[in-house]
Amino acid sequence: MGASVLTHPAVEELQLAKVMDALADPVRLAIARALAAEGEIACGTLDLGVAAATRSHHFRVLREAGVICQRPEGTTRINSLRRDDLEARFPGLLDKVLEAAAARAAA
Amino acid sequence: MGASVLTHPAVEELQLAKVMDALADPVRLAIARALAAEGEIACGTLDLGVAAATRSHHFRVLREAGVICQRPEGTTRINSLRRDDLEARFPGLLDKVLEAAAARAAA
Repeated sequence: MGASVLTHPAVEELQLAKVMDALADPVRLAIARALAAEGEIACGTLDLGVAAATRSHHFRVLREAGVICQRPEGTTRINSLRRDDLEARFPGLLDKVLEAAAARAAA
Repeated sequence: MGASVLTHPAVEELQLAKVMDALADPVRLAIARALAAEGEIACGTLDLGVAAATRSHHFRVLREAGVICQRPEGTTRINSLRRDDLEARFPGLLDKVLEAAAARAAA
């Protein structure tokens, strides 16, 4: 994985429809919630109950939409939420999505 | 169109991922914004710049996700946002999405 270039959209390139689509999936919502709670997480350490290839796909969708930042570290990738960028572009949105996801997970 | 049964999920059946997916599209965001601004709108009266079949598809996706209510009236359908239901289930979410969509549209 380390050789590929990890592209990230600039903050001014973030698109609402793409961000919404990235977060329109239970696994990706779970990733976003985990990152919100824990800050940085290596790709392999989250138990999402899906195959490694599926997990990589979900992380990539989140990165390409601008929801998360991925940086290579050794043989893995470290992921974090782009909270400030999302807040600058879509004020309040991420928090409401995370709150809704948390309420659903607790129900 | 009048003969088909228009199914709507109950408020307790609303799913975050489905609502997010329904709103993860520029045309459907435009429909939601128009309904938020105008209350009720007949299907044919919104100029969305897409074919009639595409328009019907987008309204159906919104209805099946629980974002809008559609009721038949003569040969058309009258659409409205399910604001209270969405607010009860995902507090604050719809407003933040609509604000973000409005900001994008104005940019």
